[in-house]
Amino acid sequence: MLYIGVIGTGECTASEASLAEEVGREIARRKAVLICGGRRGIMEAAAKGAKEAGGLVIGILPGKSRQEGNPYLTVALATGLGDARNAVIACACDVLIAIYGGYGTLSEIGLALKMGKPVVGLFTWELVQKEKRSFAVHQARSAVEAVELAIQLA
Amino acid sequence: MLYIGVIGTGECTASEASLAEEVGREIARRKAVLICGGRRGIMEAAAKGAKEAGGLVIGILPGKSRQEGNPYLTVALATGLGDARNAVIACACDVLIAIYGGYGTLSEIGLALKMGKPVVGLFTWELVQKEKRSFAVHQARSAVEAVELAIQLA
Amino acid sequence: MLYIGVIGTGECTASEASLAEEVGREIARRKAVLICGGRRGIMEAAAKGAKEAGGLVIGILPGKSRQEGNPYLTVALATGLGDARNAVIACACDVLIAIYGGYGTLSEIGLALKMGKPVVGLFTWELVQKEKRSFAVHQARSAVEAVELAIQLA
Amino acid sequence: MLYIGVIGTGECTASEASLAEEVGREIARRKAVLICGGRRGIMEAAAKGAKEAGGLVIGILPGKSRQEGNPYLTVALATGLGDARNAVIACACDVLIAIYGGYGTLSEIGLALKMGKPVVGLFTWELVQKEKRSFAVHQARSAVEAVELAIQLA
Repeated sequence: MLYIGVIGTGECTASEASLAEEVGREIARRKAVLICGGRRGIMEAAAKGAKEAGGLVIGILPGKSRQEGNPYLTVALATGLGDARNAVIACACDVLIAIYGGYGTLSEIGLALKMGKPVVGLFTWELVQKEKRSFAVHQARSAVEAVELAIQLA
Repeated sequence: MLYIGVIGTGECTASEASLAEEVGREIARRKAVLICGGRRGIMEAAAKGAKEAGGLVIGILPGKSRQEGNPYLTVALATGLGDARNAVIACACDVLIAIYGGYGTLSEIGLALKMGKPVVGLFTWELVQKEKRSFAVHQARSAVEAVELAIQLA
Repeated sequence: MLYIGVIGTGECTASEASLAEEVGREIARRKAVLICGGRRGIMEAAAKGAKEAGGLVIGILPGKSRQEGNPYLTVALATGLGDARNAVIACACDVLIAIYGGYGTLSEIGLALKMGKPVVGLFTWELVQKEKRSFAVHQARSAVEAVELAIQLA
Repeated sequence: MLYIGVIGTGECTASEASLAEEVGREIARRKAVLICGGRRGIMEAAAKGAKEAGGLVIGILPGKSRQEGNPYLTVALATGLGDARNAVIACACDVLIAIYGGYGTLSEIGLALKMGKPVVGLFTWELVQKEKRSFAVHQARSAVEAVELAIQLA
């Protein structure tokens, strides 16, 4: 069974949420487990999409309480690790899909790439390493393309 | 939904495994999620009992690879945290049941009690704090008693 | 250079502090680095003893801010890991001295023993593993005895 | 006392090492503590520069053994956390200087920015968040400029 991480910010617009929800739905349809940070925004939208399509959704929370989890998680894990939980998310997944995203998402991308996990991006950070010009994140243009690319890369 | 941790060593005798399996089964029958360290021994036996009774079992692994998980986990989370994953197990549960157990189990008992989570013991460490004589682990005598006590305490 | 951990509660009586301070002083006199949890009580007293004797003291804090460190630390490291920082303390030391102590101390003893690090106790937890009757913590009666025993065991 | 993190890869060219060493030296001259990942490459060069200028250098290692630390650390802390130790580095510093760097460095930049810590870059990742075009890393052109900028920002 494939574990696909969906990473993104805890706040987002309705159209960003709609994209994340579609990503979640496509993951569940392909019988993969969705791993996320368990909170609001992109994480909640992806969890909603997967949950409503009958998928298994694990939220790996930074705080000490499950109460901070969104309502669409099959299992909410309170880690108490703070931002170090980002490393746990990256470690637990086979492949990650970054949707938009801020600094936390950036750190998860970095951690995943460090661990050798492929990362697919949907309108997320463009990473250019000065002088080396590496583009490590595989850019996709739609939810379906992102999930199919993720499964292919994993 | 209640999250019950089952903690114990990665190696155990057949009769110890049998007790752990019964604990897992009783947890699943009561529709609680079983959280464990995901490896062999007591963890595997409890996971087997819960899985076969239709329960949801989460294994929180110390290493970087899901391959080290036992075959009865609904979801195996590779944390890469080493022994620090014991703190994640304690944090993620509402209550823990310690079955026999070595030093790792001892650390999880300590972490859980520090976080204010109740711990039920089945033939596990007896903890006596010198001069204060505190007995912090609630001792049970059977799998059913342990699970019922855990649910009551949570 | 030897790294000796001193573990104990964040609150203590004046006589407990006095013992911890003596332990810290003896550690510094033997040119070992003192590692502790960085907070008040036993940790602060041990840090004070070592600092005043010219020793190097590292505090590994659970929270996100150095402000929670006591004033006797050479370096205060805010980890943001919560109670999982106990595993870092155990991992960073060659040997640990537990002075009195509550559940957090118990967890550090368990983690250290799991990692194969010797633990010396001064009026701390007595650990009896049911049926196996193991006494894993080396009991000492005085600060000097504890530090000498720790150095011998490391 | 200011804590300045120096982050970069575990392998580097001689000229990259020379720049890192100068950064370390400038940090020590300004009486700041240098925090790094404790290993080879950029980390070792920066540690060397600081140590030889009389500075205090803390290495926060990913593994379980101090042996993996470079020889210029005042204190080497084995965390056993794997890549999650990157979050500890970011948390422990007031400001970070990224020198060149790969994916691990990228994750540390993301974690630091997420925690609200300023990051100064020397020939490191250029971060462009699609559509928002944020440039979160303060670019410097020399070791002295980087350290002075870091102190100003902290």
